Amino acid sequence: MDPALAHLGEFGLIGLIRERMRHRSPGTVLGIGDDAAVLRPEADAEVIATTDMLLEGVHFQRHWGCPRELGRKTLAVNLSDIAAMGGRPQHALLGLGVPPSGVPLAEIEALLAGLEEEAAAYGVALVGGDTCASRSGLVLSVTLLGVVAAGRAILRSGAHPEETVWVTGRLGGSAAGLLALESGLRPDSPWPAGLPRPTWIGPAEEAALQAGLRAHLLPVPRLAIGQALVGCATAMIDVSDGIASDLGHLCTESRVGARIQAGRVPIHPAAAVVGRWLGRDPLDLALRGGEDYELLFTSRADPRPRLLAVAPELEVTALGAVVAEPLGARLETADGREHAMAGGFDHFSAAP
Amino acid sequence: MDPALAHLGEFGLIGLIRERMRHRSPGTVLGIGDDAAVLRPEADAEVIATTDMLLEGVHFQRHWGCPRELGRKTLAVNLSDIAAMGGRPQHALLGLGVPPSGVPLAEIEALLAGLEEEAAAYGVALVGGDTCASRSGLVLSVTLLGVVAAGRAILRSGAHPEETVWVTGRLGGSAAGLLALESGLRPDSPWPAGLPRPTWIGPAEEAALQAGLRAHLLPVPRLAIGQALVGCATAMIDVSDGIASDLGHLCTESRVGARIQAGRVPIHPAAAVVGRWLGRDPLDLALRGGEDYELLFTSRADPRPRLLAVAPELEVTALGAVVAEPLGARLETADGREHAMAGGFDHFSAAP
Repeated sequence: MDPALAHLGEFGLIGLIRERMRHRSPGTVLGIGDDAAVLRPEADAEVIATTDMLLEGVHFQRHWGCPRELGRKTLAVNLSDIAAMGGRPQHALLGLGVPPSGVPLAEIEALLAGLEEEAAAYGVALVGGDTCASRSGLVLSVTLLGVVAAGRAILRSGAHPEETVWVTGRLGGSAAGLLALESGLRPDSPWPAGLPRPTWIGPAEEAALQAGLRAHLLPVPRLAIGQALVGCATAMIDVSDGIASDLGHLCTESRVGARIQAGRVPIHPAAAVVGRWLGRDPLDLALRGGEDYELLFTSRADPRPRLLAVAPELEVTALGAVVAEPLGARLETADGREHAMAGGFDHFSAAP
Repeated sequence: MDPALAHLGEFGLIGLIRERMRHRSPGTVLGIGDDAAVLRPEADAEVIATTDMLLEGVHFQRHWGCPRELGRKTLAVNLSDIAAMGGRPQHALLGLGVPPSGVPLAEIEALLAGLEEEAAAYGVALVGGDTCASRSGLVLSVTLLGVVAAGRAILRSGAHPEETVWVTGRLGGSAAGLLALESGLRPDSPWPAGLPRPTWIGPAEEAALQAGLRAHLLPVPRLAIGQALVGCATAMIDVSDGIASDLGHLCTESRVGARIQAGRVPIHPAAAVVGRWLGRDPLDLALRGGEDYELLFTSRADPRPRLLAVAPELEVTALGAVVAEPLGARLETADGREHAMAGGFDHFSAAP
């Protein structure tokens, strides 16, 4: 263990977290420093609760050298779940397991700085948590509580036949960014000296790759979009496993099917570059890569007018339609053939 | 990875959890199966939120062979935090990281069975969570939400001079049980063949050791006690790090000191046996061992009459008194000398 961290001790670390996480949120009766936090619920609102873990070696590598981004992402992936309900985030709890050796205090401080940036950006107060040693890697677990007007949460189960399937932003950027990271690229850094660079990768392609790295390391939770879709979207899910899988979940919970057009899938420019560079199918990255944290939703009305008000530059794409037959999520290719979309990222089948 | 678990996959495991965790709780608008849970707050109540992680190799060893107990304890340590606020538990979220190899599906099923037993025993519904592969050990993270009447939560910060310091139950049993586990003893099992058995350890001593194992593996959260102390206890904390440390936290938050008598500390019988067997000081196990999950609280009035109604057989011991000088937690020994109580378990100073 880093001597500075060992000197600080568990209670010193809790004190550091308490000091660094300064953003406050309404409804906090009692924050960090007791057995539990005490929160005052809003009148006529329901509480939304979600939890996500990020584990070293599975969700991130410490040698990428991006602890600040990791701090932001740890909260962002939970914020994305609140966004997918149309909710407003309020209070977070942090579980932090620190391995016995090799994590300098400065890295923990950078992680907390990122967490605080994200918390402040989205109006979240850290109100509690748990710190402990970890025998293995760095363990990050965030639980996020939010609110939504009673009865107004957008569920996965509300889709109906003949509604349109929509998605925000572009897909496959995060998966492409992950492949680029694994190949040695780093955010805001020049092409690594030891990595062969194809001649066709010019400044535009490199900028696309950097956008992919950002999409993976710093996903932007679509909170304003999610909230603007309350009363418009009939069902919604965030794209964490890839739309091939996530649209399937939405169909299952809504007891419907969906048919989307391959040609309409908005492919992130990084996926196109990585596809050519590393011999991957860009459409496959877009459908099955996961971790884009865009919003996938169904709607009868065109959602774009109301989204223009909150995110004028965001692409919102009609992918296809909900169908009555509960045949899952299906993809129609340019040749007119229809394919069942296989699953997205599965943590267990991906494990060695 | 166990082929049965790999075959099940991540979404199969989520389905299994959804199927096995059957206990329902009022206020659940939407449980497992969406991006987040939706909960209806109670009128005139505040929400209490706490989170605790149990990590393999730090908080437990899989080779102890007690997955059902582990499932119970994962929830129990969080229930204990709700108890220490005087609250009533309602909704839980589970983060579950499963290592890529060596955890049979049957072990996960036993863990879920234990979790469900504990949830049903205390009226908790599992409403959400996150499952993923873990590159390292088994990772368990539970967040528990409860309620307490508005303004009635018992904080750490409410102690006043001249109040009495009380503790429920006996201390040091969990630490003694952990030492016994590490020495090879197992719950409900005869003395191991390869382990030398001192001649003075007879049936009574062995029963005490077994009680220590149970105290460590299956701590009993003091929920009814905590709730009965609302309106009586002025400050409260659960004994997770050992009273030497936990009484210090209570003093710090209340800006007071406390002086307790060494001779009054209720030492668990297992601590006495382990003390003689392994050459440890039973009082030290009781003060600094931690994980007893008893309640340590301050009160002006004698709490025993009201506790008799909910737990007639539970010992409740007056340890000493709150004092005005903010000198931390101090221990008075039989010779009349006074000692500052050093800290309890610190995750980072205990790390190798």
